Amino acid sequence: MNQIDMMKELHIPSDKKIVLLVLDGLGGLPDARGLTELEAARTPNMDRLCRDSICGLSTPVAPGITPGSGPGHLGLFGYDPVAYQIGRGVLEALGIGMELTPKSLAARGNFCSLDPVTGVITDRRAGRIPTEKCASLVEKLSAIRVEGAETIVRPVKDYRFALILEGEDLEDGLTETDPQRTGLKPLKVEPLRPGAQKAARLLNEWIEKALEALKDDRPANGCTLRGIARDPGLPSYREVYGLTACAIATYPMYKGLSRLVGMEVLDAGDTVASELKTLKASWEDYDFFFFHVKKTDSSGEDGNFDAKVKVIEEVDAILPEILSLKPDVLVITGDHSTPAVLKSHSWHELPVLFHAGHIRKDAVTEFGERACMSGGLGHIRHVDLMPLAMAHADKLTKFGS
Amino acid sequence: MNQIDMMKELHIPSDKKIVLLVLDGLGGLPDARGLTELEAARTPNMDRLCRDSICGLSTPVAPGITPGSGPGHLGLFGYDPVAYQIGRGVLEALGIGMELTPKSLAARGNFCSLDPVTGVITDRRAGRIPTEKCASLVEKLSAIRVEGAETIVRPVKDYRFALILEGEDLEDGLTETDPQRTGLKPLKVEPLRPGAQKAARLLNEWIEKALEALKDDRPANGCTLRGIARDPGLPSYREVYGLTACAIATYPMYKGLSRLVGMEVLDAGDTVASELKTLKASWEDYDFFFFHVKKTDSSGEDGNFDAKVKVIEEVDAILPEILSLKPDVLVITGDHSTPAVLKSHSWHELPVLFHAGHIRKDAVTEFGERACMSGGLGHIRHVDLMPLAMAHADKLTKFGS
Repeated sequence: MNQIDMMKELHIPSDKKIVLLVLDGLGGLPDARGLTELEAARTPNMDRLCRDSICGLSTPVAPGITPGSGPGHLGLFGYDPVAYQIGRGVLEALGIGMELTPKSLAARGNFCSLDPVTGVITDRRAGRIPTEKCASLVEKLSAIRVEGAETIVRPVKDYRFALILEGEDLEDGLTETDPQRTGLKPLKVEPLRPGAQKAARLLNEWIEKALEALKDDRPANGCTLRGIARDPGLPSYREVYGLTACAIATYPMYKGLSRLVGMEVLDAGDTVASELKTLKASWEDYDFFFFHVKKTDSSGEDGNFDAKVKVIEEVDAILPEILSLKPDVLVITGDHSTPAVLKSHSWHELPVLFHAGHIRKDAVTEFGERACMSGGLGHIRHVDLMPLAMAHADKLTKFGS
Repeated sequence: MNQIDMMKELHIPSDKKIVLLVLDGLGGLPDARGLTELEAARTPNMDRLCRDSICGLSTPVAPGITPGSGPGHLGLFGYDPVAYQIGRGVLEALGIGMELTPKSLAARGNFCSLDPVTGVITDRRAGRIPTEKCASLVEKLSAIRVEGAETIVRPVKDYRFALILEGEDLEDGLTETDPQRTGLKPLKVEPLRPGAQKAARLLNEWIEKALEALKDDRPANGCTLRGIARDPGLPSYREVYGLTACAIATYPMYKGLSRLVGMEVLDAGDTVASELKTLKASWEDYDFFFFHVKKTDSSGEDGNFDAKVKVIEEVDAILPEILSLKPDVLVITGDHSTPAVLKSHSWHELPVLFHAGHIRKDAVTEFGERACMSGGLGHIRHVDLMPLAMAHADKLTKFGS
């Protein structure tokens, strides 16, 4: 029996409310001044809350593993990110706000350059064409029809686009067409299991028509498809936890990830302030609130230490208003670390502040990476957080007798 | 290779002795005065021993999971409580001191009220009849005979009884007969696998005869069977650890659980003092001693903080006598938390005091939940304790070369 099965079996109703406040990429590393972003930020409200909480450090996937947004959030949502993998095509589509249904098959597309005579790939990224060029090529591709499925194509960024096939019996388990190096022709999509034959046939038909449509373009006279995948069909929050859950997020990727686990995605504007407004307005309607703050991560990716500090301080400033709603359980953490000094996601543990009734308070009086090292939660994993939140919200019954 | 297989392969003999001292429900939460039961208790002997030990916190099953007595103890005994589950019928029977053999099939029984005309259940608990009434009804049921198995019925409490069928080829994998709500007739026992057909047939025959025997009674003119299960056939302590193990416990449930893993259950009276006497008298005969103290849990369940403190102090007072036997390894912990403020089992970690040779002493100088947060053992799981105890008793050889 895995954790998801255990939660399915043990969850019971209670009227308590859980808030999971995720500062994307929260975890940091010290810059030259010796403090991490969170340590450098002035966070009087979080620090005060620490005294009435239990803290610790959490590993998103496994030690040393740097997660993408998908695995980072799946862990926080209580789904083992190694057991439940989301295909790249699905994440690409979710990331630009495309909606998936159980009949969708999604793929990442790359425009590429082909030798007009031999047909071999000469540039796998078509000279990194600009996004506007990508958009105009996608318009051409949007005219393609294949029998047995609807097709939806959208530009992503530079040479990347997303393709969704929508139809009956479109199984995944399909090879990619990018041969991973130049000098080779794009490959055919091959089914890896019998059920995927129809999807392979339709995708190959689509690619053939795409090559025809692109043939006179330069440098993007070809394209490849990667990460072809369906919605992984994750068991929903209602099924696993019995929760009526909502997501308050500003970016398509996180709205999409929340939808994959059956959260209701609320209209939350595009600022922390508008997200707070949404939280307040919807407080009576849900018992679980996923509150996502994006810009800690984007500033970290930009290597902008001070901008990341500012976003943390902005969240600290709204904390009293979140607390005024009296959440029974409030967990503050991130999906993964994005230290500004690394300008990228990293594998480092995340500081966790766990505020609830029936906790054993520890000695942590400041919310920061090093303070949390000696917190009472110890070193946990992201997937441990939901069972703990459920327990502290009186939503789990006894295991065994 | 799971942990049990690893222990089977690596254990070697030594003349060292291990004592596992379990204060049932030891873990607590602070009351209004801000201290947990263990922190509030005057425990000079445990505190002194801490200075010569390594401490930590242990999770019985998994984060957020509140264990029953079965899973809590299986973890302490080194058996993954999720992989090794004990059926409720078995626990009910063990809890009242019934003995199980490999040929036993055990069920929980509930007396219920049936509409005499339609046969539907009108009260699933027969108005919660008193235990004496239950005992007199059980006497009637004891007269029932079925061909192919012996039957043993015993009263438990109120409307609950336990039934054991003893015979050849009685497999479990059987549905329950309680439809879980009133207005429906009791269900038949159905086999969930081919091997369980004989057991289903005998149980249905028994139920038919039981209904006949009860038909003139009011309000208990019916009964249902639940949690029908066999002894799970756990590998024994001798097989897994090479240990000659005994159990010193005062309550049937814990004697029964010990018997499931092949411990010899000693006559230990019904007080901590008589248990101590048993420990001393049997010291030469065994190399593993499971010493169980029940009343920390019962006081916790009663919400009686001060009574729980007293039981802890009572155990502290006998600690010097246990130490005078010079156990090579002494582990003091609990099976699960039972904070008096919750009046129930809980999911919180257990403080662990691990006293043995070849330890690295930590800075903990007081045995308590918060002191153990920063103990040298860190945050471990119950199943980790037996391998550690085995290693410190020189009973495990090297893994790999």
